[in-house]
Amino acid sequence: MTIPTNKTRTVLSDGRELIYFDDRPGIPRTAPDLRNLAPHRPQSEIRYDPVLDDWVIVAAHRQTRTNLPAASECPLCPTRGASLSEIPADDYHVVTFENRFPSLGGAYEGRGDIAGGGVRGAPGGLADDGAPSAAFQPIEPGVGRCEVVCFTSDHTSSFVRLSPERLHTVAAAWVDRTLHLSQVPGVEQVFIFENRGAEIGATLDHPHGQIYGYPFVTSRTSRALASAARWRDGHGSTSCLFCAIIADEREKRLRIVEETPSFIAFVPAAPRFPYELHVYPRRHVPDLPSLTAPELTELMSLQVDLLRRYERLFDKPIPYMACWHQAPVRVGRDLSHLSLQLMSPQRAPNVLKFFASSESGMHAYTMDVLPETIAARFRDVK
Amino acid sequence: MTIPTNKTRTVLSDGRELIYFDDRPGIPRTAPDLRNLAPHRPQSEIRYDPVLDDWVIVAAHRQTRTNLPAASECPLCPTRGASLSEIPADDYHVVTFENRFPSLGGAYEGRGDIAGGGVRGAPGGLADDGAPSAAFQPIEPGVGRCEVVCFTSDHTSSFVRLSPERLHTVAAAWVDRTLHLSQVPGVEQVFIFENRGAEIGATLDHPHGQIYGYPFVTSRTSRALASAARWRDGHGSTSCLFCAIIADEREKRLRIVEETPSFIAFVPAAPRFPYELHVYPRRHVPDLPSLTAPELTELMSLQVDLLRRYERLFDKPIPYMACWHQAPVRVGRDLSHLSLQLMSPQRAPNVLKFFASSESGMHAYTMDVLPETIAARFRDVK
Repeated sequence: MTIPTNKTRTVLSDGRELIYFDDRPGIPRTAPDLRNLAPHRPQSEIRYDPVLDDWVIVAAHRQTRTNLPAASECPLCPTRGASLSEIPADDYHVVTFENRFPSLGGAYEGRGDIAGGGVRGAPGGLADDGAPSAAFQPIEPGVGRCEVVCFTSDHTSSFVRLSPERLHTVAAAWVDRTLHLSQVPGVEQVFIFENRGAEIGATLDHPHGQIYGYPFVTSRTSRALASAARWRDGHGSTSCLFCAIIADEREKRLRIVEETPSFIAFVPAAPRFPYELHVYPRRHVPDLPSLTAPELTELMSLQVDLLRRYERLFDKPIPYMACWHQAPVRVGRDLSHLSLQLMSPQRAPNVLKFFASSESGMHAYTMDVLPETIAARFRDVK
Repeated sequence: MTIPTNKTRTVLSDGRELIYFDDRPGIPRTAPDLRNLAPHRPQSEIRYDPVLDDWVIVAAHRQTRTNLPAASECPLCPTRGASLSEIPADDYHVVTFENRFPSLGGAYEGRGDIAGGGVRGAPGGLADDGAPSAAFQPIEPGVGRCEVVCFTSDHTSSFVRLSPERLHTVAAAWVDRTLHLSQVPGVEQVFIFENRGAEIGATLDHPHGQIYGYPFVTSRTSRALASAARWRDGHGSTSCLFCAIIADEREKRLRIVEETPSFIAFVPAAPRFPYELHVYPRRHVPDLPSLTAPELTELMSLQVDLLRRYERLFDKPIPYMACWHQAPVRVGRDLSHLSLQLMSPQRAPNVLKFFASSESGMHAYTMDVLPETIAARFRDVK
């Protein structure tokens, strides 16, 4: 997909990249970052878990990150007078920039206290004496990238209140960053998401999302791709597990919440969250950049429609996660099928669903309401 | 392991089983349940997720379960006068009983609204016309069992305050229930756990744990067993991945928190929770019933020692999950290695770690503190 991006690339005083995406061309973005920040040198690492065959990110500098500041000190508002924020301009449309407290983006150097660790790409397995080798539970640099995406300069707005014009600009930024982060050395998967609501740990109120460029294919994606590969092995070289799920939902018509010409939204047959929705393009496409401009417009409008229903469920905004599942950068791209997954832990007007031992310890989830009932509620609040 | 269980089996007024485990023999447990409860007919089902190759439990009756009642109405206190609780006796030592609001334990009957679902054991795959068959996303009865384990009749006590004698009785109950639930038709895995603290969703304050008999091998266990099988393929038919991890931790000595003659406790190399500890027997045993009586005594004492350190970390009790990972009932028993995993989301005195889009959407976790630092903190609060 090629949509015009009115894009101005700048650099913050600590060396981080900040990019303005404007609703229209011709807006000068020359305001300098007047802060005198020390050079940005994030340190993070990834650690391999040989039991779950998975990587965990360790970013020790994040413990001191900004947590729910007063609105007057919001780092995502534009810079106004003496209140110097992360965004030098005194107004903006959409802006993306490198997170000041990123989970990914650097490497610990000279870590003598981690005996045997820190050797990138060292082979696993056993040493000659039969003892596990140094790299049995390897530690590697946490290369990658974490970006913040501000949807609007208006601190009190939210994603569902963005204009169609602005939604177009947000989509253009997502596509641009997906393509760009896919080129960052070491990045294997680009994940666009929004955490909304302090109840689920969002540390800033200002309307914003995030983008992670992971240095590995995530555990959930690996598992989904393995399922898709097994499905293809059993059903032919052009068959897609996700297309089959879409066909199954359209045939049963028990959990569909909305259909548009190019997309379908439904409550999955086996959800983990009380209010969970999956949105798929009917066309088998791997990622956001593969959508046409009209498809992107339709999708953004559908996302707003669905998120508005989350607000109507309990007559108030409820916490949610919006997760874009895109194909990894290098592997399994033909097996992948783009989806947007919306999840809220709200299970009653003042009750959140908690994930305790069964979920956290065994990865076994319990739903308290039938998925078909949830789908009906989503349809009822259209 | 055979340890004496001073055990009295009874039945509640709705047909649920309740068992007293006493610290010593000879205590009569004849008090009848004076409530006139309707017959216990839990309805639950399990639903297959073809993307994550996993089952989700759906138990719609749980939405109305008891949530943080006043202490005077605690259903886990003994029955005193007119306050009829779940436990008919006016005092008890340890008691286990079937959960009144279980996630598992029954089946929806006559579910005509779920087209194509509900057929147990129906084959998956495609129908003749190429459309996904009825059982593509199958629904099956949620057979299994959910039990509550009360550790003491003292509402204000807690696991770490139990006497050595009582810990022995709790261990005897865990062993007894593991063996018994392994015989319940359809149960594939027995999971003993404690959710402590309203912050992580514990709905009752009274000191208690739970036991789930799942009708499937859980996702996390399947993944761990697959890793153990790959390890064995690469390292010989008697080698154990978990024994190798124990050897690695003992060699590096970076994350060990405590060692006793038969057990080791350490912060894992790649933890998911801010304060996470794994406890393994050095001996390769699959489950609690395989421990000797002296080993069980040593283990209970170690668990109390470690949980006391959780309280000392922040000079107050903090929420935790205690999860016993035992071998499944039928598969992978020789690959399994018993462990106790303790996890707390507390990351600062008044801050809980949240799991948002990266964790919930991608299963990618970020730690804010080095695991070696966490291990040192646990050692410091001995």
